[in-house]
Amino acid sequence: MTNHVQRAAIVASATGDTTVPPIVRNQGVTAPLGFRAAGVAAGIKASGRPDLALVVNEGPEYSAAGVVTRNKVKAAPVLWTQQVLTTGRLRAVILNSGGANACTGPAGFADTHATAEAVAAAMSNWGTDTGAVEVAVCSTGLIGDRLPMDAVLTGVTTIVQDMGGGLSGGTDAARAIMTTDTVPKQAAVHHPGGWNIGGMAKGAGMMAPSLATMLVVLTTDAAVDAAALDTALRRATAGTFDRLDIDGSTSTNDTVLLLSSGASAVTPTQGQLDDAVFAVCDDLAAQLMADAEGVTKRIIITVTGAVSDDEALAGARTIARDSLVKTALFGSDPNWGRVLAAVGIAPIDLDPDRVTVRFNGALVCENGCGAAGARDVDLSGADIDVTVDLGLGPGAATIRTTDLSHAYVEENSAYSS
Amino acid sequence: MTNHVQRAAIVASATGDTTVPPIVRNQGVTAPLGFRAAGVAAGIKASGRPDLALVVNEGPEYSAAGVVTRNKVKAAPVLWTQQVLTTGRLRAVILNSGGANACTGPAGFADTHATAEAVAAAMSNWGTDTGAVEVAVCSTGLIGDRLPMDAVLTGVTTIVQDMGGGLSGGTDAARAIMTTDTVPKQAAVHHPGGWNIGGMAKGAGMMAPSLATMLVVLTTDAAVDAAALDTALRRATAGTFDRLDIDGSTSTNDTVLLLSSGASAVTPTQGQLDDAVFAVCDDLAAQLMADAEGVTKRIIITVTGAVSDDEALAGARTIARDSLVKTALFGSDPNWGRVLAAVGIAPIDLDPDRVTVRFNGALVCENGCGAAGARDVDLSGADIDVTVDLGLGPGAATIRTTDLSHAYVEENSAYSS
Repeated sequence: MTNHVQRAAIVASATGDTTVPPIVRNQGVTAPLGFRAAGVAAGIKASGRPDLALVVNEGPEYSAAGVVTRNKVKAAPVLWTQQVLTTGRLRAVILNSGGANACTGPAGFADTHATAEAVAAAMSNWGTDTGAVEVAVCSTGLIGDRLPMDAVLTGVTTIVQDMGGGLSGGTDAARAIMTTDTVPKQAAVHHPGGWNIGGMAKGAGMMAPSLATMLVVLTTDAAVDAAALDTALRRATAGTFDRLDIDGSTSTNDTVLLLSSGASAVTPTQGQLDDAVFAVCDDLAAQLMADAEGVTKRIIITVTGAVSDDEALAGARTIARDSLVKTALFGSDPNWGRVLAAVGIAPIDLDPDRVTVRFNGALVCENGCGAAGARDVDLSGADIDVTVDLGLGPGAATIRTTDLSHAYVEENSAYSS
Repeated sequence: MTNHVQRAAIVASATGDTTVPPIVRNQGVTAPLGFRAAGVAAGIKASGRPDLALVVNEGPEYSAAGVVTRNKVKAAPVLWTQQVLTTGRLRAVILNSGGANACTGPAGFADTHATAEAVAAAMSNWGTDTGAVEVAVCSTGLIGDRLPMDAVLTGVTTIVQDMGGGLSGGTDAARAIMTTDTVPKQAAVHHPGGWNIGGMAKGAGMMAPSLATMLVVLTTDAAVDAAALDTALRRATAGTFDRLDIDGSTSTNDTVLLLSSGASAVTPTQGQLDDAVFAVCDDLAAQLMADAEGVTKRIIITVTGAVSDDEALAGARTIARDSLVKTALFGSDPNWGRVLAAVGIAPIDLDPDRVTVRFNGALVCENGCGAAGARDVDLSGADIDVTVDLGLGPGAATIRTTDLSHAYVEENSAYSS
């Protein structure tokens, strides 16, 4: 696994100008100074599992940036969060699982607004003068139902009172946003320059892709403004979450937020910030892939030799979404012809007679024809690398995906989720 | 089922100028006058099942038209058939299952050429002076392996000798082109004007879509030229096979051919020809959907109220390809939120607050919000209609698709196919 993650990060677009310290995985949004977090069971989920999370920025600065789903059907919390992000300033993020609050109309938007107001009021009661416009809201779960607002609003009061310091609060928050996730997902970097960045994630997918809603909150104590955060976040999401494609679907609720407290009083260079944010996002993306619904294979699709990076990305994405490729790899079948058939319908320049394909480094197709031993390549392991060289130019790109398994069908057909 | 098929045909683009007689399903390419066909087991398939089919046009005319896959990776027989179609004239079509002869390079193309030469030589031996340029070739099966040419060439001699008249030859041919198909697929129309059209098909998918290779041969005894055939065929495939989308994949080998013998000596109007060809293609497309790999639900996706028919088609296709929609319908789950999320990523004009969705006629989402009783709609039957009204304009289009089932995963993961 480690090799794949590292290779993907290298192939993708980190600036590479700076060295990023190792990722720490048992720390998340409370790893940086100036942040507190909590997760509680508010009764939104029928199961009684944790379902409400809060991340609070205690300052002294409150810069923030975010990216949201490109789906034209946007959930109420996404519409709200887009609005409050225009100020470049956030004091808190409230997140719930157990309901997406999508396709719920004006009443659903009013629910989101009321939730932000309740967080602001509770925080103000506890001594931090806060307005609703400083509170982002994220929701995840089934599309189409109103949230149980009694439970949500009671939960907001509880969670603000219970807000703990230290790392365990971040872990509690990471647990409370889980839906079909089987493990909480956190990553942090402690920079030798004296500043830190941490994050938590749930689901899989972003903007282009999505399996379930993906929610990510990232925090840093670097003293940087909203514009610097926005630059770092867009660069990182384009190279990490945007290149995770489980099934080509895109959620109504996908949201990635980055908040800075400035509490370290250190201002890194933009390149240092970019690379650290990228590293945390890249690790969280790998964790999302590894915990995707029904996953039995972690697959890295790399296209090289395209006429441009954009065409390489389109080619890799087309292969990653092809059901016949994904079922073959579920069956550990080195059926390279399906890779050729898939890339052949990508909207890119292609000369079939120049295409070369490798599975886990083994040549299976050269210049469009099968290679000796191609049918015997062992794909029984959980990690599969598919590399396709188009032989046309310098363009290259990598997509993370998974196989199409019985468990995927089971998980997505057995109940409304 | 009948209602769905009829409705799809109505929504799609038949000219509607003329009345088409009922479809006859136990007759195929030998229903029209002037055609003979056969199917034999030539030893191409290891299983010993029939694997070689021949359709011969005995004239007096030999007009022909065809459409082939839009995949940039085209199998050798597709490249050959594209060349011979430029003459607008065919005497025979030789088809094999048991191997796609795709991604086989110049040697594979030479195999296709040798097959056409062998058919021409055998037909010439039996008294019909024929050139290889008058013989189209179609192949279907695993991509990437050379065909066993000894078996193919011996089979060609046998099949030309064995060529029978009558309807049974057509049925034998329809059986010999099957791969994962469970039933042969034929359809014919006997026009009261004194001319006939028949066809056979295997697989599912065409140009945009494909599950496995789709091969279709259509025949008519109408006295029409190649240009008239080409017009009728392109109109029909655009409205039928092009709107069958099982899994968004596209084969390297998809081919649809239409041959006329002129043996009826009747020349129908272009409208009559268009409508009859459309009707036969529409029925064959319905048969392909019903026999698609792993199908448990036959699904008709109709988008109305789009700003144009093209946008409606793009919307319907996006929904039809969405794995989360397809798994929900496999589970008989009226999870309409996934339909909203899917159409929300289609590259079309959309106002989420105007979208209305019906499952089997029952309102489940109105103006972007859930309708009362939406979660209780019964989708346990095998036929599911999904209609999405975008509320923006006059554009409408329909796509046939299937669910994403355990059987689909099993069939496509258990072996190289």
